[in-house]
Amino acid sequence: MKSSLPKVLHPVGGQSMIDWSIQLARRVGCEKIITVVSPNSDALKSHVTAALGDSAIAIQDPPLGTGHAVRAAEAALSGFTGDVIVLYGDTPLIPSTAVEALFGELEQGTGVGVLGFHAREPGAYGRLVTNGNDELEAIVEAKDASPEQLKIDICNSGVMAVRSDRLFRLLSRVTNDNKKGEYYLTDIVGLARDEGATCKVVTCQEADVMGVNSRVELAVAEAAFQSRRRQELLESGVTMTAPDTVFLAHDTIIENDVVIEPHVVFAPGVHVRSGAVIRAFSHLEGAIVDEGAQIGPYARLRPGARIGEGARIGNFVEVKKTRVGKGAKANHLAYLGDGEVGANANLGAGTIFCNYDGFLKYTTRIGEGAFVGSNSALVAPVSIGKGAYVGSGSVITEDVSADALAIGRGRQVEKAGWAAHFRVEMAEKKKQTQT
Amino acid sequence: MKSSLPKVLHPVGGQSMIDWSIQLARRVGCEKIITVVSPNSDALKSHVTAALGDSAIAIQDPPLGTGHAVRAAEAALSGFTGDVIVLYGDTPLIPSTAVEALFGELEQGTGVGVLGFHAREPGAYGRLVTNGNDELEAIVEAKDASPEQLKIDICNSGVMAVRSDRLFRLLSRVTNDNKKGEYYLTDIVGLARDEGATCKVVTCQEADVMGVNSRVELAVAEAAFQSRRRQELLESGVTMTAPDTVFLAHDTIIENDVVIEPHVVFAPGVHVRSGAVIRAFSHLEGAIVDEGAQIGPYARLRPGARIGEGARIGNFVEVKKTRVGKGAKANHLAYLGDGEVGANANLGAGTIFCNYDGFLKYTTRIGEGAFVGSNSALVAPVSIGKGAYVGSGSVITEDVSADALAIGRGRQVEKAGWAAHFRVEMAEKKKQTQT
Amino acid sequence: MKSSLPKVLHPVGGQSMIDWSIQLARRVGCEKIITVVSPNSDALKSHVTAALGDSAIAIQDPPLGTGHAVRAAEAALSGFTGDVIVLYGDTPLIPSTAVEALFGELEQGTGVGVLGFHAREPGAYGRLVTNGNDELEAIVEAKDASPEQLKIDICNSGVMAVRSDRLFRLLSRVTNDNKKGEYYLTDIVGLARDEGATCKVVTCQEADVMGVNSRVELAVAEAAFQSRRRQELLESGVTMTAPDTVFLAHDTIIENDVVIEPHVVFAPGVHVRSGAVIRAFSHLEGAIVDEGAQIGPYARLRPGARIGEGARIGNFVEVKKTRVGKGAKANHLAYLGDGEVGANANLGAGTIFCNYDGFLKYTTRIGEGAFVGSNSALVAPVSIGKGAYVGSGSVITEDVSADALAIGRGRQVEKAGWAAHFRVEMAEKKKQTQT
Repeated sequence: MKSSLPKVLHPVGGQSMIDWSIQLARRVGCEKIITVVSPNSDALKSHVTAALGDSAIAIQDPPLGTGHAVRAAEAALSGFTGDVIVLYGDTPLIPSTAVEALFGELEQGTGVGVLGFHAREPGAYGRLVTNGNDELEAIVEAKDASPEQLKIDICNSGVMAVRSDRLFRLLSRVTNDNKKGEYYLTDIVGLARDEGATCKVVTCQEADVMGVNSRVELAVAEAAFQSRRRQELLESGVTMTAPDTVFLAHDTIIENDVVIEPHVVFAPGVHVRSGAVIRAFSHLEGAIVDEGAQIGPYARLRPGARIGEGARIGNFVEVKKTRVGKGAKANHLAYLGDGEVGANANLGAGTIFCNYDGFLKYTTRIGEGAFVGSNSALVAPVSIGKGAYVGSGSVITEDVSADALAIGRGRQVEKAGWAAHFRVEMAEKKKQTQT
Repeated sequence: MKSSLPKVLHPVGGQSMIDWSIQLARRVGCEKIITVVSPNSDALKSHVTAALGDSAIAIQDPPLGTGHAVRAAEAALSGFTGDVIVLYGDTPLIPSTAVEALFGELEQGTGVGVLGFHAREPGAYGRLVTNGNDELEAIVEAKDASPEQLKIDICNSGVMAVRSDRLFRLLSRVTNDNKKGEYYLTDIVGLARDEGATCKVVTCQEADVMGVNSRVELAVAEAAFQSRRRQELLESGVTMTAPDTVFLAHDTIIENDVVIEPHVVFAPGVHVRSGAVIRAFSHLEGAIVDEGAQIGPYARLRPGARIGEGARIGNFVEVKKTRVGKGAKANHLAYLGDGEVGANANLGAGTIFCNYDGFLKYTTRIGEGAFVGSNSALVAPVSIGKGAYVGSGSVITEDVSADALAIGRGRQVEKAGWAAHFRVEMAEKKKQTQT
Repeated sequence: MKSSLPKVLHPVGGQSMIDWSIQLARRVGCEKIITVVSPNSDALKSHVTAALGDSAIAIQDPPLGTGHAVRAAEAALSGFTGDVIVLYGDTPLIPSTAVEALFGELEQGTGVGVLGFHAREPGAYGRLVTNGNDELEAIVEAKDASPEQLKIDICNSGVMAVRSDRLFRLLSRVTNDNKKGEYYLTDIVGLARDEGATCKVVTCQEADVMGVNSRVELAVAEAAFQSRRRQELLESGVTMTAPDTVFLAHDTIIENDVVIEPHVVFAPGVHVRSGAVIRAFSHLEGAIVDEGAQIGPYARLRPGARIGEGARIGNFVEVKKTRVGKGAKANHLAYLGDGEVGANANLGAGTIFCNYDGFLKYTTRIGEGAFVGSNSALVAPVSIGKGAYVGSGSVITEDVSADALAIGRGRQVEKAGWAAHFRVEMAEKKKQTQT
């Protein structure tokens, strides 16, 4: 990856690849999730520890192959007697249905379940040799394969399901008697068959098991994820004028009859309810948009934004950690940070919640139906009462009573003819500056 | 469509699909346009009534097939003796040349003209069986076709042209003696041949007659429209750095030698004159941009914006219902709503036209050559005289005379050492807050 | 091109096509660069003169073919005895390796080196007939080619390398004895072979020698450039979530471990250092972004912006000709023009550097660790001292001392019950307006 960030911490759809695998394990109901890491990957260890706790870490040191890696998890799984699924930290797009199918095979008495994929160009992939049905006879490396075997297009993804006791019993028999001197996980297939167990293949699409080993492949995986999610949303009844220009996160929720215009980015944590419109050039993260609300163009919703039913957030408006009530409006050039905006309030162009003094953040409260004139600065903590008015261009530092008008601005004065004089003077000055 | 909006009201290129068909009928010179709707589609009925009047609605109730639908228009067309073209509400991209060719066939004495298309995968489409020339012998449903007929790749679009009297005479003979028990429009081909009339095929591209039955297909139709319009604009002498990221509306007019940067959206009603530059991330709707003007990046022109020759609208600037004079500039972070800006005026960063008091909208007038200092709020109704200056950070509530300077802001005061003290105090407070 | 701009001045990757060829000539070490132009192309002549001086212009008048064009440069090259490479003004994407390979052939004793390309559809291209090795026997126009020769897929790009004396000696023998009555450069191959010289072919990709003759082809060339540069950046260790939505310039420098989100535009002159993050919807031009800085979303960096290590420029912020110190922040809705911002300073939402009075530009200086409250206008020339505070909503016209607090804003006053009264009155007025 040519990166100071460990490979499996690079994100796809806004979620690190390792978290995709952890989430997959959770989704299929795994009781224990053990992550095998190298001893010197502190960033990865602290990431996993934060997600799963200390006991989820198993150290492989030194790295002696895939079988050796799985064996490194044996102690952490001691006492666990159920089914094990072996996943990878750099293969983010495996659907849970594939893992469920593998577990299903184990339930039916299969000894080892292997996830295969139909490769468009099998090339150097290991081939899954079956008896014509799904029964797996051998996994053959491309370089060891016969011409007949090379024609097989079902390849080995590396993902396997085995009952815990069988897994570690077989792994203890795997040797490193091969060119690379490594212990291969794939060897357990032959060993399982030796002890009379049946091995089965479950297949998925090639894109499902795409591994990521470079930024190019990371971009390809991201594109595959985006393409899949966009298609799902279209099929569920979301309108996207230009799906290819809309970017979604792993957890984006968009309900029926939402319209999304071109050039929109959803970072993680967004839920858009039915009938809302997300206009062009909007960026949403950690935000909830209620029914029929209209966002953008050029709106930025940041974490903690909650936009009420039918409310409107317009161009060049940023909303952070602020609830905007039903029918309220902030249509132009505004910053709403750390606030509460009552239903049907109207915030004029250029309204700014001054929420920070360099040390702490404070709350701005706007009452129901209040009207804040354009270009006003509301210095938090401050409350604008229900139905109150703030005059345009005011700086508001004290609470405003309900139904009152507050103004805080200078008086206008005029100097007649000043501009005519100034222009003459400056034109001369500019001429001198330029010569 | 999984939508609460009737299918034919979903837009392509910013225009509802039904309006594409209505516009097509208008463009080819149809005297009468009758829309057949189901009795319970109020949204559609009021949409069509608004566009064409009450007399344009014909109700089909219950729906008994395509022939039955056309027959529902008979009363509305009583007295009309000319040629009829049957179009669909969900087929937005038919070029007018195709309809003109069908009408041309009728003029040449053809009895029924049918629009066919070359299908890449004919699959389940009805095949147009011809005598080798364009003479149509039969329309055969895929399931009734012989192996030989299945090889035909010219398929039935459903679009037909027939003279009015023949159309309704033949329709009165169509029966519903078929599996579905429906009256099919296609049956008139056989009936026309029975009475000795010639039927002819006019062909078009598959994309031209693409029907829309899901959000996925809506997105595909949109992409087809965009792709076609972008190509036309490039060929007419418009530069687009990245055509795939530029989105056009059905009525977008862009003249020769306009440059459009990446990531630009044209909503309906835009006309950009020669030599203008539309920079990246701009959004235009209902706006006219005159020769050599420069828009963006990040400019939003809303309905009623008229940007004069050589004027500049810069980043994070919104213009609505405002004429901006020749050579005038609003380059940064501004809201120009309901205004008039004179030639060569300069509006500083952060200028806001305060046009709304919660009830009514008011006009801001900026005189020729006036200079509005940054971060000023102009409280409409208000006029800034020709050549006048407004001091930065002013709130202007009264008219400013020509060539005068107006200032409306507070006086600066300073509290020495305050910040040093504040920092000590707040650092302590913050520490307490966090513990 | 249907353009008032000469074809070769249209840009690809933000650089005019003629400059691509000039830059290529420079990169491979050409001592002299002569540009052959038509006599009436003033825009082109002044462009080239500005880049290379008067002596770089050779006039071809009238245009009598490619050989005639090259001959027009003879006088300008008098006294030059080295190798010559003939390039074109409308072929921007030739890699320098191709030209170096041609020069390499001349060094090995080759008489004429010709750049060929593998054409996907050779069609009307001239074919390069070789002896099976790289030795060129003839260049045959498609219409004169035998069926056997038409099968050749290596076509003539027109780019040739010849030693100066040979080039002009051979050109003096080229005749216009052909259908078009033109002097063809390609004829020198036969003439060279006649005098016993060897001609050689060097090949490149078709995209490398794509010529541009329309806006459609300009868009295709741009896409080819973008695609190539994106791939190079990914391979060098840059993360791009959605490479297809990121637009680069010919000179964009992006270091390892930079993350670029979707929808970003790099105009010319940008250097982004390692570990910086360029968030969605950002636009950079002529700017340097230091290690670990975070830009955007919706940030616009204009020429002269220099963003220090770990600094943050947030949404709807424009920075022009301003150095922003290490760790400083301008996170929302601000205009920083002609300024200097000290390390760790914090500029609140809506801060505007008022840098222009209609005639001259002035500098705003913000001291280290200073804090500018939201919605403040700093009227340049002005300095905010180290560690000073500016109260929210202030207009600052005089320098602020270090560690002081400066406030310049109106006092807040309140009119109780005003809004309630206003609403009644206006609701009535609005009703009257509407009737």
